[in-house]
Amino acid sequence: MKIAIIQTKPIFGKVKINLSDSLAMMESTTADLYVLPELFNTGYNFVDLSEVQTLAEKSDGYTFQKMTEFAKKRNCYVVYGFAEKGEMFFNSCALVGPDRLVGVYRKIHLFYREKLFFATGNLGYPVFDLPIGRIGMMICFDWIYPEAARTLALKGAQVIAHPSNLVLSYCPDAMVTRSLENRVFAAMVDRVGIENRGNVDLRFIGQSEIVSPKGEILVRLDAEKTGIAVADIDVSLADNKFATEYNHLFNDRKPELYL
Amino acid sequence: MKIAIIQTKPIFGKVKINLSDSLAMMESTTADLYVLPELFNTGYNFVDLSEVQTLAEKSDGYTFQKMTEFAKKRNCYVVYGFAEKGEMFFNSCALVGPDRLVGVYRKIHLFYREKLFFATGNLGYPVFDLPIGRIGMMICFDWIYPEAARTLALKGAQVIAHPSNLVLSYCPDAMVTRSLENRVFAAMVDRVGIENRGNVDLRFIGQSEIVSPKGEILVRLDAEKTGIAVADIDVSLADNKFATEYNHLFNDRKPELYL
Repeated sequence: MKIAIIQTKPIFGKVKINLSDSLAMMESTTADLYVLPELFNTGYNFVDLSEVQTLAEKSDGYTFQKMTEFAKKRNCYVVYGFAEKGEMFFNSCALVGPDRLVGVYRKIHLFYREKLFFATGNLGYPVFDLPIGRIGMMICFDWIYPEAARTLALKGAQVIAHPSNLVLSYCPDAMVTRSLENRVFAAMVDRVGIENRGNVDLRFIGQSEIVSPKGEILVRLDAEKTGIAVADIDVSLADNKFATEYNHLFNDRKPELYL
Repeated sequence: MKIAIIQTKPIFGKVKINLSDSLAMMESTTADLYVLPELFNTGYNFVDLSEVQTLAEKSDGYTFQKMTEFAKKRNCYVVYGFAEKGEMFFNSCALVGPDRLVGVYRKIHLFYREKLFFATGNLGYPVFDLPIGRIGMMICFDWIYPEAARTLALKGAQVIAHPSNLVLSYCPDAMVTRSLENRVFAAMVDRVGIENRGNVDLRFIGQSEIVSPKGEILVRLDAEKTGIAVADIDVSLADNKFATEYNHLFNDRKPELYL
Protein backbone atom coordinates (compact mmCIF):
# COMPACT_ATOMS: atom_id res chain seq x y z
CA MET A 1 0.00 0.00 0.00
CA LYS A 2 1.15 3.52 -0.72
CA ILE A 3 1.53 6.11 2.02
CA ALA A 4 1.87 9.77 1.12
CA ILE A 5 3.21 12.25 3.65
CA ILE A 6 2.19 15.86 3.05
CA GLN A 7 4.49 18.42 4.68
CA THR A 8 2.66 21.74 4.73
CA LYS A 9 3.16 25.33 5.88
CA PRO A 10 -0.18 26.48 7.27
CA ILE A 11 -1.08 30.11 7.95
CA PHE A 12 -2.48 30.53 11.42
CA GLY A 13 -6.26 30.78 11.48
CA LYS A 14 -6.76 30.50 7.71
CA VAL A 15 -8.61 27.19 7.69
CA LYS A 16 -9.98 27.43 4.15
CA ILE A 17 -6.66 28.39 2.61
CA ASN A 18 -4.78 25.73 4.58
CA LEU A 19 -7.29 23.12 3.54
CA SER A 20 -7.25 24.03 -0.14
CA ASP A 21 -3.43 24.22 -0.20
CA SER A 22 -3.22 20.80 1.43
CA LEU A 23 -5.81 19.30 -0.90
CA ALA A 24 -3.92 20.66 -3.90
CA MET A 25 -0.80 18.86 -2.69
CA MET A 26 -2.78 15.68 -2.07
CA GLU A 27 -4.35 15.90 -5.55
CA SER A 28 -0.88 15.88 -7.10
CA THR A 29 -0.04 12.37 -5.97
CA THR A 30 -1.72 8.98 -5.64
CA ALA A 31 -1.75 6.97 -2.44
CA ASP A 32 -3.88 4.68 -0.29
CA LEU A 33 -3.20 6.62 2.90
CA TYR A 34 -2.40 10.34 3.12
CA VAL A 35 -1.01 11.72 6.36
CA LEU A 36 -1.07 15.44 7.20
CA PRO A 37 0.48 17.35 10.12
CA GLU A 38 -0.94 18.07 13.56
CA LEU A 39 -3.40 21.01 13.50
CA PHE A 40 -2.78 21.27 9.76
CA ASN A 41 -5.93 23.32 9.13
CA THR A 42 -5.65 25.92 11.91
CA GLY A 43 -1.94 26.36 12.60
CA TYR A 44 -0.37 25.59 15.93
CA ASN A 45 0.35 28.43 18.29
CA PHE A 46 -2.96 29.41 19.90
CA VAL A 47 -2.52 32.51 22.03
CA ASP A 48 -5.60 32.01 24.17
CA LEU A 49 -8.61 29.78 24.65
CA SER A 50 -10.91 32.03 22.65
CA GLU A 51 -8.88 31.24 19.53
CA VAL A 52 -9.36 27.54 20.17
CA GLN A 53 -13.08 28.08 20.68
CA THR A 54 -13.27 29.93 17.36
CA LEU A 55 -11.18 27.49 15.31
CA ALA A 56 -12.03 24.11 16.80
CA GLU A 57 -14.41 21.88 14.82
CA LYS A 58 -16.50 18.87 15.60
CA SER A 59 -15.13 15.64 14.18
CA ASP A 60 -17.86 15.77 11.51
CA GLY A 61 -17.26 19.46 10.74
CA TYR A 62 -16.07 21.38 7.71
CA THR A 63 -12.57 19.85 7.56
CA PHE A 64 -14.00 16.36 7.87
CA GLN A 65 -16.44 17.07 5.03
CA LYS A 66 -13.63 18.19 2.74
CA MET A 67 -11.37 15.30 3.63
CA THR A 68 -14.02 12.64 3.29
CA GLU A 69 -14.95 14.09 -0.13
CA PHE A 70 -11.34 13.61 -1.18
CA ALA A 71 -11.25 10.11 0.34
CA LYS A 72 -14.41 9.16 -1.52
CA LYS A 73 -13.18 10.55 -4.84
CA ARG A 74 -9.84 8.78 -4.53
CA ASN A 75 -11.04 5.71 -2.62
CA CYS A 76 -8.36 6.28 -0.02
CA TYR A 77 -7.81 7.09 3.66
CA VAL A 78 -6.59 10.32 5.23
CA VAL A 79 -5.15 11.10 8.66
CA TYR A 80 -5.10 14.76 9.66
CA GLY A 81 -4.70 16.75 12.86
CA PHE A 82 -7.33 19.28 13.97
CA ALA A 83 -8.55 21.13 17.05
CA GLU A 84 -11.56 19.11 18.13
CA LYS A 85 -14.66 20.54 19.73
CA GLY A 86 -15.94 17.59 21.76
CA GLU A 87 -17.22 17.59 25.33
CA MET A 88 -14.02 19.61 25.83
CA PHE A 89 -11.37 20.79 23.38
CA PHE A 90 -8.84 18.22 22.24
CA ASN A 91 -5.73 18.26 20.07
CA SER A 92 -6.95 15.41 17.89
CA CYS A 93 -6.38 13.62 14.65
CA ALA A 94 -8.96 11.90 12.53
CA LEU A 95 -8.73 8.88 10.27
CA VAL A 96 -11.30 9.17 7.49
CA GLY A 97 -12.16 6.68 4.78
CA PRO A 98 -14.09 6.79 1.51
CA ASP A 99 -17.43 7.23 3.18
CA ARG A 100 -16.96 7.69 6.88
CA LEU A 101 -15.05 8.81 9.91
CA VAL A 102 -13.12 5.69 10.86
CA GLY A 103 -11.93 7.05 14.19
CA VAL A 104 -10.37 9.83 16.21
CA TYR A 105 -7.30 9.90 18.43
CA ARG A 106 -7.11 12.64 21.07
CA LYS A 107 -3.55 13.62 22.01
CA ILE A 108 -2.59 12.19 25.38
CA HIS A 109 0.81 13.79 25.94
CA LEU A 110 0.19 17.48 25.40
CA PHE A 111 3.24 19.69 24.82
CA TYR A 112 3.98 22.97 26.52
CA ARG A 113 1.18 25.58 26.29
CA GLU A 114 -1.20 23.12 24.65
CA LYS A 115 -2.00 22.20 28.24
CA LEU A 116 -3.62 25.60 28.68
CA PHE A 117 -6.20 24.99 25.96
CA PHE A 118 -6.65 21.30 25.39
CA ALA A 119 -7.83 18.46 27.62
CA THR A 120 -5.82 15.26 27.87
CA GLY A 121 -6.98 12.71 25.34
CA ASN A 122 -9.57 10.30 26.74
CA LEU A 123 -9.85 7.70 23.99
CA GLY A 124 -6.65 5.74 24.67
CA TYR A 125 -4.61 4.58 21.69
CA PRO A 126 -7.06 2.93 19.29
CA VAL A 127 -5.98 0.80 16.34
CA PHE A 128 -8.19 0.48 13.26
CA ASP A 129 -8.28 -2.64 11.12
CA LEU A 130 -8.76 -1.47 7.53
CA PRO A 131 -8.39 -3.10 4.11
CA ILE A 132 -5.08 -1.20 3.70
CA GLY A 133 -3.69 -2.39 7.05
CA ARG A 134 -4.00 -1.89 10.79
CA ILE A 135 -3.50 1.81 11.47
CA GLY A 136 -2.77 3.48 14.82
CA MET A 137 -2.27 7.17 15.50
CA MET A 138 -0.26 9.30 17.85
CA ILE A 139 0.44 13.03 17.78
CA CYS A 140 3.75 14.88 17.97
CA PHE A 141 5.11 14.84 21.58
CA ASP A 142 3.68 11.36 22.13
CA TRP A 143 6.94 10.26 20.49
CA ILE A 144 8.93 10.89 23.68
CA TYR A 145 6.80 8.40 25.60
CA PRO A 146 7.87 4.93 24.45
CA GLU A 147 4.61 3.63 25.91
CA ALA A 148 2.61 5.37 23.17
CA ALA A 149 4.09 3.60 20.14
CA ARG A 150 4.47 0.44 22.24
CA THR A 151 0.78 0.41 23.10
CA LEU A 152 -0.19 0.88 19.45
CA ALA A 153 2.16 -1.89 18.33
CA LEU A 154 1.03 -4.31 21.03
CA LYS A 155 -2.54 -3.65 19.90
CA GLY A 156 -1.53 -4.74 16.43
CA ALA A 157 -0.81 -1.52 14.56
CA GLN A 158 1.27 -2.12 11.44
CA VAL A 159 1.52 1.58 10.63
CA ILE A 160 1.70 4.46 13.10
CA ALA A 161 0.40 7.66 11.50
CA HIS A 162 2.03 10.45 13.46
CA PRO A 163 0.85 14.01 12.70
CA SER A 164 3.34 16.43 14.26
CA ASN A 165 4.32 20.08 14.67
CA LEU A 166 7.91 19.70 15.84
CA VAL A 167 9.86 22.53 17.41
CA LEU A 168 12.55 20.36 19.06
CA SER A 169 15.14 18.53 16.98
CA TYR A 170 15.03 14.99 18.37
CA CYS A 171 11.93 13.32 16.98
CA PRO A 172 12.95 12.40 13.41
CA ASP A 173 15.88 10.29 14.65
CA ALA A 174 13.95 8.97 17.65
CA MET A 175 11.30 7.53 15.33
CA VAL A 176 13.96 5.17 13.99
CA THR A 177 14.20 3.76 17.52
CA ARG A 178 10.39 3.61 17.84
CA SER A 179 10.09 1.68 14.57
CA LEU A 180 12.92 -0.68 15.44
CA GLU A 181 11.82 -1.52 18.97
CA ASN A 182 8.23 -2.18 17.81
CA ARG A 183 8.88 -3.43 14.29
CA VAL A 184 6.26 -1.10 12.83
CA PHE A 185 6.08 1.42 10.03
CA ALA A 186 5.93 5.04 11.16
CA ALA A 187 4.72 7.97 9.07
CA MET A 188 5.75 11.09 10.98
CA VAL A 189 4.37 14.16 9.24
CA ASP A 190 5.58 17.57 10.33
CA ARG A 191 5.05 21.12 9.06
CA VAL A 192 7.59 23.80 8.19
CA GLY A 193 7.80 27.56 8.57
CA ILE A 194 7.87 30.03 11.42
CA GLU A 195 4.76 31.01 13.34
CA ASN A 196 5.01 34.36 15.11
CA ARG A 197 2.17 34.77 17.57
CA GLY A 198 1.97 36.25 21.06
CA ASN A 199 5.55 37.51 20.76
CA VAL A 200 6.82 33.96 20.31
CA ASP A 201 8.54 32.70 17.20
CA LEU A 202 8.05 28.98 16.73
CA ARG A 203 10.18 27.41 14.02
CA PHE A 204 8.99 24.01 12.83
CA ILE A 205 11.65 21.56 11.68
CA GLY A 206 10.00 19.59 8.88
CA GLN A 207 11.86 16.35 8.14
CA SER A 208 8.66 14.37 7.77
CA GLU A 209 9.53 10.76 7.13
CA ILE A 210 8.42 7.20 6.65
CA VAL A 211 10.43 4.63 8.61
CA SER A 212 10.31 0.86 8.12
CA PRO A 213 10.05 -1.82 10.84
CA LYS A 214 13.81 -2.33 10.41
CA GLY A 215 14.52 1.30 11.18
CA GLU A 216 15.23 2.27 7.58
CA ILE A 217 14.32 5.86 6.72
CA LEU A 218 12.44 5.15 3.48
CA VAL A 219 11.86 8.84 2.73
CA ARG A 220 12.61 12.04 4.61
CA LEU A 221 11.53 15.52 3.54
CA ASP A 222 13.36 18.83 3.83
CA ALA A 223 13.74 20.82 7.06
CA GLU A 224 12.38 24.05 5.55
CA LYS A 225 10.41 23.35 2.37
CA THR A 226 6.92 21.98 1.98
CA GLY A 227 6.80 18.70 0.11
CA ILE A 228 5.30 15.33 -0.57
CA ALA A 229 6.89 11.90 -0.40
CA VAL A 230 5.41 8.51 -1.08
CA ALA A 231 6.52 5.05 -0.03
CA ASP A 232 5.07 1.81 -1.29
CA ILE A 233 5.13 -0.49 1.70
CA ASP A 234 4.23 -4.08 2.50
CA VAL A 235 2.40 -3.69 5.81
CA SER A 236 2.75 -7.39 6.57
CA LEU A 237 6.45 -6.81 7.28
CA ALA A 238 5.28 -5.26 10.54
CA ASP A 239 3.81 -8.60 11.61
CA ASN A 240 7.29 -10.13 11.86
CA LYS A 241 8.54 -9.30 15.35
CA PHE A 242 11.68 -11.41 15.10
CA ALA A 243 14.86 -9.33 15.44
CA THR A 244 16.83 -12.57 15.00
CA GLU A 245 15.67 -16.19 14.75
CA TYR A 246 16.03 -16.37 18.55
CA ASN A 247 14.57 -12.97 19.39
CA HIS A 248 10.83 -12.31 19.10
CA LEU A 249 10.64 -8.76 20.39
CA PHE A 250 7.13 -9.09 21.80
CA ASN A 251 7.14 -12.67 23.10
CA ASP A 252 10.45 -11.98 24.87
CA ARG A 253 9.07 -9.06 26.88
CA LYS A 254 9.08 -9.63 30.63
CA PRO A 255 6.32 -7.36 31.94
CA GLU A 256 6.58 -8.92 35.39
CA LEU A 257 10.07 -7.40 35.67
CA TYR A 258 9.13 -3.90 34.42
CA LEU A 259 7.74 -0.95 36.31
CA MET B 1 31.56 12.60 39.30
CA LYS B 2 33.83 11.19 36.62
CA ILE B 3 32.81 8.20 34.52
CA ALA B 4 35.41 6.36 32.47
CA ILE B 5 34.35 4.05 29.65
CA ILE B 6 36.90 1.40 28.74
CA GLN B 7 36.49 0.02 25.22
CA THR B 8 38.48 -3.22 25.02
CA LYS B 9 39.29 -5.99 22.55
CA PRO B 10 39.27 -9.23 24.53
CA ILE B 11 40.74 -12.50 23.30
CA PHE B 12 38.26 -15.32 23.71
CA GLY B 13 38.96 -17.48 26.74
CA LYS B 14 42.07 -15.61 27.91
CA VAL B 15 40.67 -14.29 31.17
CA LYS B 16 43.99 -13.32 32.77
CA ILE B 17 45.22 -11.46 29.72
CA ASN B 18 41.89 -9.69 29.20
CA LEU B 19 41.81 -8.68 32.85
CA SER B 20 45.37 -7.37 32.92
CA ASP B 21 44.88 -5.49 29.63
CA SER B 22 41.71 -3.90 30.97
CA LEU B 23 43.31 -3.02 34.30
CA ALA B 24 46.23 -1.40 32.47
CA MET B 25 43.76 0.81 30.60
CA MET B 26 41.91 1.61 33.82
CA GLU B 27 45.22 2.47 35.58
CA SER B 28 45.93 5.06 32.91
CA THR B 29 43.02 7.30 33.87
CA THR B 30 41.26 8.56 36.98
CA ALA B 31 37.51 8.24 37.53
CA ASP B 32 34.88 7.57 40.16
CA LEU B 33 33.10 4.95 38.08
CA TYR B 34 34.72 2.73 35.44
CA VAL B 35 32.48 0.81 33.05
CA LEU B 36 33.73 -2.16 31.03
CA PRO B 37 32.01 -4.18 28.26
CA GLU B 38 29.74 -7.19 28.55
CA LEU B 39 31.71 -10.44 29.09
CA PHE B 40 34.89 -8.35 29.04
CA ASN B 41 36.99 -11.03 30.70
CA THR B 42 35.98 -14.09 28.67
CA GLY B 43 35.02 -12.83 25.22
CA TYR B 44 31.56 -13.23 23.79
CA ASN B 45 30.95 -16.02 21.34
CA PHE B 46 30.66 -19.23 23.35
CA VAL B 47 30.39 -22.23 21.04
CA ASP B 48 28.84 -24.59 23.56
CA LEU B 49 27.77 -24.89 27.17
CA SER B 50 30.99 -26.58 28.22
CA GLU B 51 32.88 -23.37 27.43
CA VAL B 52 30.49 -21.44 29.64
CA GLN B 53 30.95 -24.01 32.41
CA THR B 54 34.74 -23.61 32.12
CA LEU B 55 34.85 -19.81 31.97
CA ALA B 56 31.98 -18.72 34.21
CA GLU B 57 32.87 -17.41 37.67
CA LYS B 58 30.98 -16.87 40.86
CA SER B 59 30.27 -13.23 41.62
CA ASP B 60 33.04 -13.35 44.25
CA GLY B 61 35.49 -15.14 41.96
CA TYR B 62 38.83 -14.24 40.44
CA THR B 63 37.60 -11.31 38.34
CA PHE B 64 35.75 -9.84 41.30
CA GLN B 65 38.91 -10.11 43.43
CA LYS B 66 40.96 -8.23 40.85
CA MET B 67 38.33 -5.54 40.31
CA THR B 68 37.69 -4.95 43.98
CA GLU B 69 41.44 -4.63 44.55
CA PHE B 70 41.47 -1.89 41.94
CA ALA B 71 38.37 -0.26 43.42
CA LYS B 72 39.95 -0.29 46.88
CA LYS B 73 43.27 1.14 45.67
CA ARG B 74 41.54 3.92 43.72
CA ASN B 75 38.55 4.39 46.03
CA CYS B 76 36.21 4.03 43.05
CA TYR B 77 33.47 1.85 41.59
CA VAL B 78 33.63 -0.53 38.63
CA VAL B 79 30.91 -2.11 36.47
CA TYR B 80 31.98 -5.09 34.36
CA GLY B 81 30.26 -7.87 32.48
CA PHE B 82 31.06 -11.54 33.22
CA ALA B 83 29.65 -15.03 32.78
CA GLU B 84 28.19 -15.79 36.20
CA LYS B 85 28.10 -19.22 37.80
CA GLY B 86 25.08 -18.92 40.08
CA GLU B 87 22.29 -21.45 40.61
CA MET B 88 22.38 -21.42 36.79
CA PHE B 89 24.62 -19.58 34.32
CA PHE B 90 23.83 -15.92 33.71
CA ASN B 91 25.17 -13.21 31.43
CA SER B 92 25.72 -10.76 34.28
CA CYS B 93 27.41 -7.56 35.24
CA ALA B 94 28.71 -6.64 38.65
CA LEU B 95 29.01 -3.29 40.38
CA VAL B 96 31.92 -3.38 42.82
CA GLY B 97 33.03 -0.73 45.25
CA PRO B 98 36.13 -0.10 47.34
CA ASP B 99 35.53 -3.02 49.67
CA ARG B 100 32.57 -4.99 48.44
CA LEU B 101 30.29 -6.34 45.78
CA VAL B 102 27.55 -3.71 45.63
CA GLY B 103 25.28 -5.76 43.39
CA VAL B 104 24.78 -7.88 40.32
CA TYR B 105 22.44 -7.50 37.35
CA ARG B 106 21.64 -10.63 35.35
CA LYS B 107 20.77 -9.94 31.71
CA ILE B 108 17.04 -10.22 31.11
CA HIS B 109 16.86 -9.83 27.32
CA LEU B 110 19.33 -12.38 26.00
CA PHE B 111 20.45 -11.99 22.40
CA TYR B 112 20.60 -14.73 19.81
CA ARG B 113 22.62 -17.82 20.84
CA GLU B 114 23.11 -16.54 24.37
CA LYS B 115 19.74 -18.20 24.96
CA LEU B 116 21.41 -21.59 24.48
CA PHE B 117 23.79 -21.10 27.39
CA PHE B 118 22.43 -18.51 29.77
CA ALA B 119 19.29 -18.37 31.89
CA THR B 120 17.08 -15.28 31.81
CA GLY B 121 18.07 -12.83 34.55
CA ASN B 122 16.07 -13.28 37.74
CA LEU B 123 17.05 -10.23 39.76
CA GLY B 124 14.95 -7.59 37.98
CA TYR B 125 16.52 -4.18 37.34
CA PRO B 126 18.07 -3.09 40.64
CA VAL B 127 19.26 0.46 41.31
CA PHE B 128 22.03 1.13 43.82
CA ASP B 129 22.21 4.32 45.85
CA LEU B 130 25.93 5.13 46.23
CA PRO B 131 27.87 8.22 47.30
CA ILE B 132 28.66 8.87 43.61
CA GLY B 133 25.00 8.64 42.50
CA ARG B 134 22.20 6.20 41.90
CA ILE B 135 23.46 3.58 39.47
CA GLY B 136 21.41 1.10 37.45
CA MET B 137 22.65 -1.50 35.01
CA MET B 138 21.46 -3.13 31.84
CA ILE B 139 23.34 -5.27 29.33
CA CYS B 140 23.61 -4.89 25.54
CA PHE B 141 20.34 -6.04 23.86
CA ASP B 142 18.31 -4.72 26.79
CA TRP B 143 18.58 -1.42 24.87
CA ILE B 144 15.91 -2.49 22.37
CA TYR B 145 13.33 -2.90 25.15
CA PRO B 146 12.32 0.62 26.23
CA GLU B 147 10.97 -0.95 29.42
CA ALA B 148 14.50 -1.75 30.61
CA ALA B 149 15.87 1.79 30.78
CA ARG B 150 12.41 3.05 31.79
CA THR B 151 12.27 0.71 34.76
CA LEU B 152 15.74 1.77 35.90
CA ALA B 153 14.87 5.46 35.56
CA LEU B 154 11.52 5.11 37.34
CA LYS B 155 13.38 3.39 40.17
CA GLY B 156 15.56 6.48 40.44
CA ALA B 157 18.68 5.63 38.45
CA GLN B 158 20.67 8.75 37.52
CA VAL B 159 23.21 6.78 35.51
CA ILE B 160 22.62 3.64 33.47
CA ALA B 161 25.82 1.63 33.15
CA HIS B 162 25.38 -0.45 30.02
CA PRO B 163 28.06 -3.07 29.28
CA SER B 164 27.61 -4.24 25.70
CA ASN B 165 29.00 -6.40 22.91
CA LEU B 166 27.22 -4.90 19.91
CA VAL B 167 27.05 -6.62 16.55
CA LEU B 168 24.11 -4.61 15.15
CA SER B 169 24.47 -0.94 14.24
CA TYR B 170 21.50 0.68 15.97
CA CYS B 171 22.29 0.93 19.66
CA PRO B 172 24.65 3.94 19.84
CA ASP B 173 22.04 6.23 18.29
CA ALA B 174 19.15 4.58 20.12
CA MET B 175 20.79 5.37 23.45
CA VAL B 176 20.24 9.05 22.67
CA THR B 177 16.50 8.29 22.64
CA ARG B 178 16.78 6.25 25.86
CA SER B 179 18.58 9.11 27.64
CA LEU B 180 16.14 11.73 26.36
CA GLU B 181 12.95 9.88 27.15
CA ASN B 182 14.15 9.07 30.68
CA ARG B 183 16.35 12.11 31.35
CA VAL B 184 19.21 9.91 32.57
CA PHE B 185 22.90 9.58 31.84
CA ALA B 186 23.85 6.44 29.92
CA ALA B 187 27.33 4.94 29.74
CA MET B 188 27.18 2.36 26.97
CA VAL B 189 30.46 0.46 26.79
CA ASP B 190 31.13 -1.79 23.85
CA ARG B 191 34.11 -3.83 22.66
CA VAL B 192 35.83 -3.86 19.27
CA GLY B 193 37.43 -6.50 17.07
CA ILE B 194 36.30 -9.63 15.27
CA GLU B 195 35.72 -12.91 17.08
CA ASN B 196 35.92 -15.96 14.84
CA ARG B 197 34.54 -19.00 16.62
CA GLY B 198 32.39 -21.92 15.47
CA ASN B 199 32.71 -20.77 11.86
CA VAL B 200 31.04 -17.46 12.71
CA ASP B 201 32.74 -14.08 12.41
CA LEU B 202 31.27 -11.58 14.82
CA ARG B 203 32.39 -8.00 14.29
CA PHE B 204 31.81 -5.69 17.24
CA ILE B 205 31.08 -2.08 16.47
CA GLY B 206 32.65 -0.12 19.33
CA GLN B 207 31.28 3.43 19.55
CA SER B 208 31.10 3.32 23.33
CA GLU B 209 29.63 6.54 24.58
CA ILE B 210 28.36 8.63 27.44
CA VAL B 211 25.05 10.39 26.76
CA SER B 212 23.51 13.14 28.90
CA PRO B 213 19.88 13.41 30.07
CA LYS B 214 19.38 15.92 27.26
CA GLY B 215 20.52 13.43 24.65
CA GLU B 216 23.92 15.03 24.12
CA ILE B 217 26.65 12.55 23.17
CA LEU B 218 29.31 13.76 25.63
CA VAL B 219 31.94 11.34 24.31
CA ARG B 220 31.90 8.58 21.72
CA LEU B 221 34.78 6.21 20.99
CA ASP B 222 35.96 4.78 17.68
CA ALA B 223 34.22 1.93 15.82
CA GLU B 224 37.39 -0.17 15.52
CA LYS B 225 40.01 0.92 18.03
CA THR B 226 40.20 0.26 21.74
CA GLY B 227 40.09 3.40 23.83
CA ILE B 228 39.15 5.25 26.96
CA ALA B 229 36.97 8.30 27.38
CA VAL B 230 36.03 10.19 30.51
CA ALA B 231 33.16 12.58 31.21
CA ASP B 232 32.78 14.67 34.32
CA ILE B 233 29.04 14.72 34.97
CA ASP B 234 26.66 16.28 37.47
CA VAL B 235 24.40 13.34 38.28
CA SER B 236 21.77 15.64 39.79
CA LEU B 237 20.88 16.79 36.26
CA ALA B 238 19.14 13.42 35.93
CA ASP B 239 16.74 14.37 38.72
CA ASN B 240 15.17 17.08 36.56
CA LYS B 241 12.49 15.35 34.53
CA PHE B 242 11.08 18.54 33.03
CA ALA B 243 11.36 18.59 29.23
CA THR B 244 9.72 22.05 29.32
CA GLU B 245 8.26 24.01 32.23
CA TYR B 246 4.92 22.36 31.41
CA ASN B 247 6.20 18.85 30.73
CA HIS B 248 7.40 16.64 33.57
CA LEU B 249 8.18 13.45 31.70
CA PHE B 250 7.42 11.11 34.58
CA ASN B 251 4.48 12.86 36.22
CA ASP B 252 2.80 13.18 32.81
CA ARG B 253 2.85 9.46 32.12
CA LYS B 254 -0.60 7.89 31.81
CA PRO B 255 -0.06 4.23 32.74
CA GLU B 256 -3.82 3.63 32.80
CA LEU B 257 -3.83 4.27 29.02
CA TYR B 258 -0.82 2.08 28.19
CA LEU B 259 -0.66 -1.65 27.54
